[in-house]
Amino acid sequence: MADKISQAVISRLPRYLRYLGDLKDEGVERISSHDLSIRMHVTASQIRQDFNHFGGFGQQGYGYNVGYLYDEIGKILGLDHKHSMVIIGAGNLGQALANYMNFEKRGFFVKGIFDRNEEVIGKKVRNLEIQDIANLESFITDNQIEIAVLTLPKAGATEISKILVRSGITAIWNFAHVDLDLPDNVIVENVHLSESLMKLSYKLNRKK
Amino acid sequence: MADKISQAVISRLPRYLRYLGDLKDEGVERISSHDLSIRMHVTASQIRQDFNHFGGFGQQGYGYNVGYLYDEIGKILGLDHKHSMVIIGAGNLGQALANYMNFEKRGFFVKGIFDRNEEVIGKKVRNLEIQDIANLESFITDNQIEIAVLTLPKAGATEISKILVRSGITAIWNFAHVDLDLPDNVIVENVHLSESLMKLSYKLNRKK
Repeated sequence: MADKISQAVISRLPRYLRYLGDLKDEGVERISSHDLSIRMHVTASQIRQDFNHFGGFGQQGYGYNVGYLYDEIGKILGLDHKHSMVIIGAGNLGQALANYMNFEKRGFFVKGIFDRNEEVIGKKVRNLEIQDIANLESFITDNQIEIAVLTLPKAGATEISKILVRSGITAIWNFAHVDLDLPDNVIVENVHLSESLMKLSYKLNRKK
Repeated sequence: MADKISQAVISRLPRYLRYLGDLKDEGVERISSHDLSIRMHVTASQIRQDFNHFGGFGQQGYGYNVGYLYDEIGKILGLDHKHSMVIIGAGNLGQALANYMNFEKRGFFVKGIFDRNEEVIGKKVRNLEIQDIANLESFITDNQIEIAVLTLPKAGATEISKILVRSGITAIWNFAHVDLDLPDNVIVENVHLSESLMKLSYKLNRKK
């Protein structure tokens, strides 16, 4: 059933998960699509359509079971598995991501952090010693790392992505300001922060 | 002319700007939509359609003038103006953004950085002393700050957003993992990093 799901629907799932998590924290056990729609500022029809892609998650008229829905969406998003990551680039952004505890709560574990700068190699970020990037390839293979997080400048990113492909990485979460040229079997998700800021700036400009 | 432009087109403009910047750096003065399409892995027809929203930027058969196109797209994105920002939350992510020089190159200047944690207030990030968040409202008014960058936990973000609205902020670049409830005249651009990671995880899960 989950085969024909559009990118737009997928993009909305993490937001549903966030709201359902809040409801769980508040002790709410059941919610109608109407009440959820008011909280989320989307239409109830949108919610029902989105959930129908996965079998509907509930019986008409009874509302959704919050805990069940939360778990099911989590499974669709692969959050019922543990994922191992390495961070490449131990600058401010790399350290920020390494220190972000919420990723662990979701099952994403940082197993290693790498840099090429000798001044930072050996220093600790949380409980991890920053390693020389020369060890990256063997580390990925030996530890069966799934996800590489790229938080390094544009120039280095292209070169490193070749090493990652060679070492059999499954996915790259790319913060470097460049589109990586990767084989089809490597999953990539880009976060281009400057581009987000420019969208904000566009809206500012239109407002004037 | 720029009145009916879809969000999808706007979202693509920063990427065009990035590729045109690279071409400029390589000394390329003119490029056809065909050659640009090969570089960018999009169709030439898509490029022509996108640019036609802004009057086309070139004469049929002569290709685009790289420098002119770069400047024009920059103007549409509001990059020909300087923008002043404050960062609220001096944790790792706040410091990463404060230290990111590329924002300044684009005209985005960090004028202040704020936190409520007494242990960090007074410390320096780059050339800025971290200020007590109690000073935020007057600082925004006195310095005519346009953009507030929210890099603080969910719980604090909602409260701070009310202070920001009261102080007349124009735009919020929100990294807090919450949808802010803002009046229509305040521009918001969200960056929910966890949601990006979940999209990656969804693709990983589908692959298995």
